[in-house]
Amino acid sequence: MPSPKTQPARGMRDFLPEEVRKRQYVIGVIKEVYERYGFEPLETPAVENIETLWGKYGEEGNQLIFKILKRGEHEKTGEADLALRYDLTVPLARVVAQYQNELPKFFKRYQIQPVWRADRPARGRFREFYQCDVDVLGSRSMIVETELISAASDALVALGFKDFVIRINHRQVLTGILDQAGVARDKYEDALIALDKMDKAGPEGVAGELNGRGIVDESAVKLMRLFEGLTGAERAVELLDIGDSDSKRAAFNLDVLGHLVEFIGPHEGGATGIDELRQILEFAKASGVDNRIKLDPTLARGLAYYTGAIIEINVADLPGSLGGGGRYDNLVGIFLGKDVPACGFSLGLERIIVVMGEREMFSTLLTSSPADVMVTVWNENSFGQSIELATELRNKGLRVDLYPEADKLAKQFKYASSRAIPFVAIIGDEERGRGEVAIKDMRSGEQRSVKRDEVAEEVCRGIIQLERSEY
Amino acid sequence: MPSPKTQPARGMRDFLPEEVRKRQYVIGVIKEVYERYGFEPLETPAVENIETLWGKYGEEGNQLIFKILKRGEHEKTGEADLALRYDLTVPLARVVAQYQNELPKFFKRYQIQPVWRADRPARGRFREFYQCDVDVLGSRSMIVETELISAASDALVALGFKDFVIRINHRQVLTGILDQAGVARDKYEDALIALDKMDKAGPEGVAGELNGRGIVDESAVKLMRLFEGLTGAERAVELLDIGDSDSKRAAFNLDVLGHLVEFIGPHEGGATGIDELRQILEFAKASGVDNRIKLDPTLARGLAYYTGAIIEINVADLPGSLGGGGRYDNLVGIFLGKDVPACGFSLGLERIIVVMGEREMFSTLLTSSPADVMVTVWNENSFGQSIELATELRNKGLRVDLYPEADKLAKQFKYASSRAIPFVAIIGDEERGRGEVAIKDMRSGEQRSVKRDEVAEEVCRGIIQLERSEY
Repeated sequence: MPSPKTQPARGMRDFLPEEVRKRQYVIGVIKEVYERYGFEPLETPAVENIETLWGKYGEEGNQLIFKILKRGEHEKTGEADLALRYDLTVPLARVVAQYQNELPKFFKRYQIQPVWRADRPARGRFREFYQCDVDVLGSRSMIVETELISAASDALVALGFKDFVIRINHRQVLTGILDQAGVARDKYEDALIALDKMDKAGPEGVAGELNGRGIVDESAVKLMRLFEGLTGAERAVELLDIGDSDSKRAAFNLDVLGHLVEFIGPHEGGATGIDELRQILEFAKASGVDNRIKLDPTLARGLAYYTGAIIEINVADLPGSLGGGGRYDNLVGIFLGKDVPACGFSLGLERIIVVMGEREMFSTLLTSSPADVMVTVWNENSFGQSIELATELRNKGLRVDLYPEADKLAKQFKYASSRAIPFVAIIGDEERGRGEVAIKDMRSGEQRSVKRDEVAEEVCRGIIQLERSEY
Repeated sequence: MPSPKTQPARGMRDFLPEEVRKRQYVIGVIKEVYERYGFEPLETPAVENIETLWGKYGEEGNQLIFKILKRGEHEKTGEADLALRYDLTVPLARVVAQYQNELPKFFKRYQIQPVWRADRPARGRFREFYQCDVDVLGSRSMIVETELISAASDALVALGFKDFVIRINHRQVLTGILDQAGVARDKYEDALIALDKMDKAGPEGVAGELNGRGIVDESAVKLMRLFEGLTGAERAVELLDIGDSDSKRAAFNLDVLGHLVEFIGPHEGGATGIDELRQILEFAKASGVDNRIKLDPTLARGLAYYTGAIIEINVADLPGSLGGGGRYDNLVGIFLGKDVPACGFSLGLERIIVVMGEREMFSTLLTSSPADVMVTVWNENSFGQSIELATELRNKGLRVDLYPEADKLAKQFKYASSRAIPFVAIIGDEERGRGEVAIKDMRSGEQRSVKRDEVAEEVCRGIIQLERSEY
């Protein structure tokens, strides 16, 4: 019989059990942390009316939306009336407009669901991938920014990350800088693209980039002077990205604020921005996350809809970020007809999983092993006894696999090994006569008999030892 | 500004936080139980190549598949190359074919993901809904059927169901019955549809239905005699669906087996089927689930692909079932080119959630309350203290909301009440002077001050009391 193609669709992935366990573990940790912050879960349909999504992501975005054909007699028109969710922000805005009377005044929601984009698949770029968004609607308080930063930081720490840096900037500060430097309004975008390269290209690279983009006059000189001053501040405290002492980082951030105040002066938006950054730093100190924060006036972030603070979290071994976000006070208005202050942060779930995999941050026991113990079957007539033992152990909370056939024991052992199940239980005729069960440690090969009612305890002890030996 | 439509797409649902918490709770319990049985999680993409799905669900199924338009220059052809997942069984068959060398010999997988069907929306019928499937591939042992039955039963018990009945039958037993009654092969389907109504219409209704479908000769008489005998057996033991004693149910099931053996006699497939049912009963006794099982030779189940045991779980207050499944040894072959024995069970997640809602089986505290405690803000200058307290309580594992603005306390209290947050923490100037925090119980209105480092303990104690008072 000719088999049809059995691969998943282009750019999409099947997740076999080990991979799902890793993903579920990461999602579970993030969920737990976000719920500790009082964030509530929201879920929206995978499918939206096409007009809900159309035009919300720019012309390029429109091209990447998966469209669903009309059905029945309308199918032959070749028209689409539905589309696959493209991100989690537009559905949030729609939900806020639709249920405004049911939602609390401050709506703190997290949403961890897949989105679909008809992008050209590439290494690390998929057509179905998860987003992990957390947003607060309804308040302009910098408490919101701080809570988002602290929660994302706590989530990364809970996953085992130690070496990340939280970069913060402010859209109005950027505007203030460009205004005060005398950059023409129509050159703002060029200037931001150039500044964004400070991290990788250094001051000289940025100077070249500014020149190349036609920012050549006094404004370029002013900009470079500011950023050389900031780089100097960084050198002065010998700031390292990883493991900086609190005092060094605090000194650096204060120094940056000082440079900004001096440069921006009385510029209205800019001064407000500086004030908000100052508040975030103060609040972050109270939540204990300040030692991970680095004010970075070169951080620009692409999305056009940000209006206030912008945030990005980086680690050294990943180009791009582990997550990012910022304040967008005007977006919800598209659906609601009136503006709602909003600020959000998105953890890059797929990237986090990749980095954790590369750094071997997953517990092998947790992700590879489908069961704590496998109960074997002695012979054709002893299925009942094996089922009874499996049932007992499951009732005690253990994850128990039961071999389904009366194969030779050696074959059953081999199967348990191949599945990374650490222990195997055997009820041979001899053991049964003595009211005992033999437990075989599949790693050491050791086997010992224990009283029937001590099996669960014996396995638990073994699992705990294994878990400890992993660290 | 004119707002675009903000409803979700037709037949699809937004799940606001309370609803998501209920769904996550149910999914979490089921996952945990299935993992105790050694089932492993699988996830497949929402989108499949259209040829993977096409023709697998019959002509009616083809009509209900959501099709995705080709992209780019091909879009204008109006053709579809992709489609939304329609069930979890066909993707499983594809995965087994694609990864046959990576999967274990016995592949025990669970999968809890949404599927999409372009059905006409109706009460309780949605175009996006979750399926919750558990399947075992690779073994013909009746251990498989028993494990599936026990796991589904354990999951329902863990969710709080006490009154369900697990009905079991066997496709080959049905064939045996019809063959021995002399029903013509081309009348099989009619006979099964008629028998399936025994539950609701009783023997007379079934007799009428058989007649109406042209099964009028001796075969109808024979069938009716068998089923009247079975109904008699039911009356003889005064079998009730709910809370039967083990011995009554065991006696009834044995009696049914006896009637079947007598009727089917040496019919080869039928005898095999009876033997397998007997084994399932024996194994189910060892796993302790036998007292919920009722052999029901009238159970037919619609799907054409079943080849062996068929299973359905019912409760009195739900037309339809809480779940169902059976053995299908020939389906995977469509993709793999060779048959793989398989047996599966699907819990009706959406129905379970509906019934649990109607029966008020959800914990209010668990589903309504987004936080254990809300920390208030005393005034503009005390944000830092409130953040510090919130951080402390979160680090102790509590779910803590932090009010983001320095509103009047009364307003903050009202907000906490409206969100069903049971406790509120206040750090007034006075309390702060004494190193204390005031805790207000939002249900009783009582307020008392406790030492700062006893706040977490105080809230925990209150939460435990609340949880207990719910039961």
